[in-house]
Amino acid sequence: MAKNIMHYDTVSLDDENSALVIIDQTQLPGKVEMLSLTEQKDIWEAIYLLKVRGAPAIGVAAAIGVYLAAKNIKAKDYPTFYEEFKAAKDYLATSRPTAVNLFWALDRMENVVKANKELPVDEIVKLLHDEAVEIREEDIRVCRAIGEYGLTLIKDGDGILTHCNAGQLATVKYGTALAPIHLGVERGMNFKVFTDETRPLLQGIRLSSFELHSNGVDTTVICDNMASQVMKNGWVQAVFVGCDRVAANGDVCNKIGTSGVAILAKHYGIPFYVCGPTSTIDMSIAHGDDIPIEVRPDHEVTEMWYSKRMAPEGVKVYNPAFDVSDNSLVTAIITEFGIARAPYDKSLKEIFAQKEAASKK
Amino acid sequence: MAKNIMHYDTVSLDDENSALVIIDQTQLPGKVEMLSLTEQKDIWEAIYLLKVRGAPAIGVAAAIGVYLAAKNIKAKDYPTFYEEFKAAKDYLATSRPTAVNLFWALDRMENVVKANKELPVDEIVKLLHDEAVEIREEDIRVCRAIGEYGLTLIKDGDGILTHCNAGQLATVKYGTALAPIHLGVERGMNFKVFTDETRPLLQGIRLSSFELHSNGVDTTVICDNMASQVMKNGWVQAVFVGCDRVAANGDVCNKIGTSGVAILAKHYGIPFYVCGPTSTIDMSIAHGDDIPIEVRPDHEVTEMWYSKRMAPEGVKVYNPAFDVSDNSLVTAIITEFGIARAPYDKSLKEIFAQKEAASKK
Repeated sequence: MAKNIMHYDTVSLDDENSALVIIDQTQLPGKVEMLSLTEQKDIWEAIYLLKVRGAPAIGVAAAIGVYLAAKNIKAKDYPTFYEEFKAAKDYLATSRPTAVNLFWALDRMENVVKANKELPVDEIVKLLHDEAVEIREEDIRVCRAIGEYGLTLIKDGDGILTHCNAGQLATVKYGTALAPIHLGVERGMNFKVFTDETRPLLQGIRLSSFELHSNGVDTTVICDNMASQVMKNGWVQAVFVGCDRVAANGDVCNKIGTSGVAILAKHYGIPFYVCGPTSTIDMSIAHGDDIPIEVRPDHEVTEMWYSKRMAPEGVKVYNPAFDVSDNSLVTAIITEFGIARAPYDKSLKEIFAQKEAASKK
Repeated sequence: MAKNIMHYDTVSLDDENSALVIIDQTQLPGKVEMLSLTEQKDIWEAIYLLKVRGAPAIGVAAAIGVYLAAKNIKAKDYPTFYEEFKAAKDYLATSRPTAVNLFWALDRMENVVKANKELPVDEIVKLLHDEAVEIREEDIRVCRAIGEYGLTLIKDGDGILTHCNAGQLATVKYGTALAPIHLGVERGMNFKVFTDETRPLLQGIRLSSFELHSNGVDTTVICDNMASQVMKNGWVQAVFVGCDRVAANGDVCNKIGTSGVAILAKHYGIPFYVCGPTSTIDMSIAHGDDIPIEVRPDHEVTEMWYSKRMAPEGVKVYNPAFDVSDNSLVTAIITEFGIARAPYDKSLKEIFAQKEAASKK
């Protein structure tokens, strides 16, 4: 097995071979296989089958994918080119119907086409190349910035607990929740990281422990219900988790189980840090209770991964994919524009003011 | 599948066939198979392979087992009879080397032999029969008493969350944590019960959900990390768990994950009840921190039940089998001699005073 996955990124563009290169996450942790994808149907399938997953990584893969589609369009007149581009975009958009980053990245690519319709098609394709590369570079910059801010909150030797995978496997590089760890390791620091298994989809044991262990981090896998004992043992100095959506009041929607970890951290007096790009903060949602919770199929709990069904036939299952951690449980929210602390209605506005100011530079 | 396992008990004596009858728990929940065991090696194996499990159930199985061994002894002189009885007892004692109830039940049976050495062997065998039956009946009485006390704390229609299996599958009938539910159902009450999956050994999804669902209880399985969301939804009016050992100050050692559930319950203002016979209260242990925590093999977390290994090779695993819930998290401890509440150093002494008084009647 590759000992250091930092040598390759989760998702990248191979210009020489006109290929989207990804690490096949469905094979992890048993097998490390890099896929070089050139056909649209293979790229669609890679997103659909979660070979590439995590909102930022999906967005980048789609941007690169639609650029590769544009590059292959033979038509040199704009109307035909646009029509074929639009068809390729719409096709990729069907790969994960609820992935906001997917649509965001594809729309951004389409805007490049529409804003430059007066240019020759070859020039538009070049601009699409640069936009895809920029979307990818932006993601790395955002994650690195989150890592820099997060790193100010921990010190060499700290024990850190994380839940699910908000690591580089969900982004291009560094990740969000795991960015402080990866960045610290790049600088020679050492941490002892505990990864919650994260039932039922096992992102913690399969992905977080893989990327951390591969990167040389002292990594210990635990079942979700062991976090309390690990904290009681005094082994955890900070919790870092990602977020799927943050409300304007600082309530955090993230992978199921996160709110339980937040409550445990508060009980044991351990800081609970939420890491996420400002794109996941939804200022139009006032309160976490307004965030709808996706409930997923029973079989993920009763059968998935297992060699046989583990529940009696006919028993009910409740399988929420996310939960909401009340802002009172959140020590800080770490974004690429700084660290927000309570009261969040005020501090998150300040973060967005800084984002606004940065965009005007 | 049998719809109502209350029709048969977890462990019983079939006098007609001179057999120990158990429900094979290794086949649950997929298959309900009653085993009728007459050979000592089969009884030993049933305990060793966890076909019968749970401290009280193991004790009863061993008592019945050693009675059946005694019944088959051909010698009619006491010295030879005792020698063969002792060999059978020592053999069964090796089936689960750390099960205190196993030794306790076998010692109690041996005491019957030693205290009646002046009687004919046939008479001793009859007394052993009665003692095994009494050990079993006692367990039912203790569990029913716990159920009666527990039932005073809940009302028809309540939502109840439980962790692991402290049900009738761990005892002869009723269980400890699940006794209030089973007893309430016998009386026509309805509850909505949530069973934590209970990684890594899955006692919640495999056993608790089976016995509750089979008994007609509205049962919903959740992953351990979903308990917080279920409580936040307002679906839980009380938590009931068992205990492996209670310290004199009321600290509770129970299945890994219990302390996390206790902390969540406190956070959400839900009463957290611990059910157990007085035999699990160890007044010689002052504080929960003095209870050693068994750490079990890695493969239970990374491979067991799964169709393939889920963790990367070489990653560390921490797999504690138990944790300790601080007495400040425990709303009440429910025993066969009443309900103890904080301060536990005082209330647990009172419980034992009542036990002492009852034994003198």
